[in-house]
Amino acid sequence: MPPRPHFYFWKIMNNFYGVIKMKASSERLRSRSLEAKIMTAEEAASLIKDGMIVGTSGFTPAGYPKEVPMALAKRAEKENLRITLYTGASVGDELDGTLARAGAITKRIPYQTNDSIRKGINSGQIEFVDLHLSHMPQMIRYGFLGKLDVAIVEAVAIREDGGIVPATSVGNTPVFIEMAEKVIVELNESQPLELEGMHDIYTPENPPHRKPIPITKTADRIGTTYIPCNPEKIAAIVLTSRKDSVRPLAPVNECSRKISEHLIEFLDHEVKRGRLPKKLLPLQSGVGNIANAVLKGLVDSPFEGLEFYSEVIQDAVFDLLDSGKMTIASGTSVTPSEEGLERFYKNINFYRDKIILRPQEISNNPEVIRRLGIIAMNTAIEVDIYGHVNSTHIMGTKMMNGIGGSGDFARNAYLSIFATPSTAKDGAISCIVPKVSHVDHTEHDVMVVVTEQGLADLRGLSPRERAREIIQKCAHPDYRDALMEYYKKAVDLSGSAHTPHILEEALSWHINFLQKGRMI
Amino acid sequence: MPPRPHFYFWKIMNNFYGVIKMKASSERLRSRSLEAKIMTAEEAASLIKDGMIVGTSGFTPAGYPKEVPMALAKRAEKENLRITLYTGASVGDELDGTLARAGAITKRIPYQTNDSIRKGINSGQIEFVDLHLSHMPQMIRYGFLGKLDVAIVEAVAIREDGGIVPATSVGNTPVFIEMAEKVIVELNESQPLELEGMHDIYTPENPPHRKPIPITKTADRIGTTYIPCNPEKIAAIVLTSRKDSVRPLAPVNECSRKISEHLIEFLDHEVKRGRLPKKLLPLQSGVGNIANAVLKGLVDSPFEGLEFYSEVIQDAVFDLLDSGKMTIASGTSVTPSEEGLERFYKNINFYRDKIILRPQEISNNPEVIRRLGIIAMNTAIEVDIYGHVNSTHIMGTKMMNGIGGSGDFARNAYLSIFATPSTAKDGAISCIVPKVSHVDHTEHDVMVVVTEQGLADLRGLSPRERAREIIQKCAHPDYRDALMEYYKKAVDLSGSAHTPHILEEALSWHINFLQKGRMI
Repeated sequence: MPPRPHFYFWKIMNNFYGVIKMKASSERLRSRSLEAKIMTAEEAASLIKDGMIVGTSGFTPAGYPKEVPMALAKRAEKENLRITLYTGASVGDELDGTLARAGAITKRIPYQTNDSIRKGINSGQIEFVDLHLSHMPQMIRYGFLGKLDVAIVEAVAIREDGGIVPATSVGNTPVFIEMAEKVIVELNESQPLELEGMHDIYTPENPPHRKPIPITKTADRIGTTYIPCNPEKIAAIVLTSRKDSVRPLAPVNECSRKISEHLIEFLDHEVKRGRLPKKLLPLQSGVGNIANAVLKGLVDSPFEGLEFYSEVIQDAVFDLLDSGKMTIASGTSVTPSEEGLERFYKNINFYRDKIILRPQEISNNPEVIRRLGIIAMNTAIEVDIYGHVNSTHIMGTKMMNGIGGSGDFARNAYLSIFATPSTAKDGAISCIVPKVSHVDHTEHDVMVVVTEQGLADLRGLSPRERAREIIQKCAHPDYRDALMEYYKKAVDLSGSAHTPHILEEALSWHINFLQKGRMI
Repeated sequence: MPPRPHFYFWKIMNNFYGVIKMKASSERLRSRSLEAKIMTAEEAASLIKDGMIVGTSGFTPAGYPKEVPMALAKRAEKENLRITLYTGASVGDELDGTLARAGAITKRIPYQTNDSIRKGINSGQIEFVDLHLSHMPQMIRYGFLGKLDVAIVEAVAIREDGGIVPATSVGNTPVFIEMAEKVIVELNESQPLELEGMHDIYTPENPPHRKPIPITKTADRIGTTYIPCNPEKIAAIVLTSRKDSVRPLAPVNECSRKISEHLIEFLDHEVKRGRLPKKLLPLQSGVGNIANAVLKGLVDSPFEGLEFYSEVIQDAVFDLLDSGKMTIASGTSVTPSEEGLERFYKNINFYRDKIILRPQEISNNPEVIRRLGIIAMNTAIEVDIYGHVNSTHIMGTKMMNGIGGSGDFARNAYLSIFATPSTAKDGAISCIVPKVSHVDHTEHDVMVVVTEQGLADLRGLSPRERAREIIQKCAHPDYRDALMEYYKKAVDLSGSAHTPHILEEALSWHINFLQKGRMI
């Protein structure tokens, strides 16, 4: 990508006396009066006091602030400084990682994927509240999560009226800006100005005044291209050109490819049975390698005119848009790999009218998801023989990442699909178990389970029927007999109860793994 | 209630030859050409063949067909006749009970409260699919639950255009009439014609054509007062005057009264903190004695101008409407006690513009529930220390009733509240347990737990914080120490994991109960 002149519109000049003079370009900072708020990250960080509730931009490692959190972490190493940290979802290590390692986080909401945060959560250092991503913004507006002191948000530009043009994610930034006492903006020149116009910012009113969200098609734009912000709230502007720490994407492996094949075959079958339109319905897909494989599979599928109404726009979405198979992609963040990000920026004018970035309150909104009839594809950590899904806890106790948006989508979807490899840890763990060790998605919300072994269609099946279907279609052959044995024994001992279980043995596979390193 | 002439507009005349001649009043049957479809229940039942999928009206013991199911049950005792039975929710014994005892049901969806059905479900005779009540109608329209052969619906009247005026419930009747091959109508003279005008029938289109549901206030009427029906589909009309088998309501006991007090104090506190409007937000309440006590408590509360956007309209709602404390009640069925029903009919002209009966697809719709900001109050069978709720399974295996609408409401509510007595079976069971034996509402969907002991406000709390709150506020003193002991031991053994558990002991309270008749 050729360097563009406006990427260099500001200069940071460090003079001999260590005094830093900074100037933002008038394209990035469009209000002269706000120029006085430009300061260093350290100065901005000093606005944050011990015990404060801080909300930041960022959803996946995209569009999150970096300079101020790092400056804050440095302070926390020297002084007593612990904050409650709210974000959109996961964010990059400069934010979650540095603050966690500095011991600066007491509470974290609503989602994370960072090793250091996770360690804190699973050792009692950090209290983590695992919320549906669409619930959090309204809970903040309702006053259920306390009073937000400071918002730290990354921006591409600040408008003359104070309006914030976000970077590659929207997430909870609108509600944080609305509800925080003070707003700190990191104006990031590494994010191209061409992002402006891709966002669609709409905030529902609180009940009893809420109106229908006027989206009836994936492509509908209903709001502004910037986040309204009272300029008097902007307490600091920090200039930076630090890039997002995007994540690499593993190549599609055999297991993910098979899952993708089963899924596409199923969707094709549904079209043939008249239960799905030819061009399907808008797709939602979780993040990660299975999700990427499924989307990549669609590139070579017979489907045309696809739409994407999801959270995160990953590399494979660019493939679908490039191939013409997909016409529109709506999400709350663009999170490609490093190569993907380069590709995105290089062709940003091609993607501009095909990608919409919405607040997570809208991208994940039950109202819109149910109305549009989303096909929701999410991943599970483990699934039990009755179709309950665990997507958050390792062996029932340790937090992995969080429920994220999977519940928002699965619960309200036209089709709710969960995918997982049939085994983990080189076969020591069966991802199909007698009883999941934690439930995030109940039997009432899971229509289809798919592993590399096959696909179980659970619609209209009772628990006893589901058990036979899941064991036969989805379980790994190494575990199939043991699962069937558990099921049959449970039927006998429970007198064929609605959901046969042997309570003494229901969690024994997990206990085995913890004690012996193998589930059976 | 004085007998009204039009209650006797038809006569059933049994002549010497056993031939039955029947005539409906022109107020009840407004199409002359449909008169030819009048027949006996036995004749109508003969339209139903072995293996068929049959959908009936009825939601709670209100507005369900009685004559044809009883005739069907008689046939099933003599011939091979087993059907799949879909309803709105629970129905009366004439339908669920007689058919179950005749062994005539292979599969049952989506909810039940009948002893005979329950016995069948928990002994492997009947396959039961426990669905969110708002999900079922669209799943039928999507073709996910097979092709409906026959709908049997109770009606107050049939319009000239074939339109069906339902009785005291709407439930799934619109979708059954829309999707069934044939429709059998039970025209019931025991249901007053004044019910006409209380229903509001609206059917959302399937995606991708679905539009916003245009309800922005509880009182909004958006549809027709009858269920459209192609008259050619009406295959039989059966005349009856058999009344609904309504359920008696126990008087408010001390435990329910205390739960009600805690709840009203909490709501008051929320108003004072500015987190709820003075007149609250529309209330939803589950069925049964706790729900009734809470609503009765509101009659003596300081709240005015209350609204009810719920499923089932019980006796206490009449108290609230009568007192002027409540201005409008929207539901999908009116299910009072026998005294309540009499009172309802006696004052039907007072209640007519204050009660709206909607399809369960609308009364329980996530879009509307989230928009209006419902305060959802539902009951739990058991709750665990981390806030997961079991509302369906006894000791993890045996089906009680089903999830009903609790998930539709709890998941999308402004406030999601679950109530339960702290103990059951004379104290042998603690309803607060280390780990619930079945999960219907996950930790992500439960904001408040209340027992007669107190109320735990879980908003913004991590699992470890929730455990201390629930144990201290909600557990019965007899179990509090044992719960705290479990929790502390789990913290120690799990290294203070996000959700501390000892897998070997997590279900031991249930196992104890099954083995020794006491949880500890």
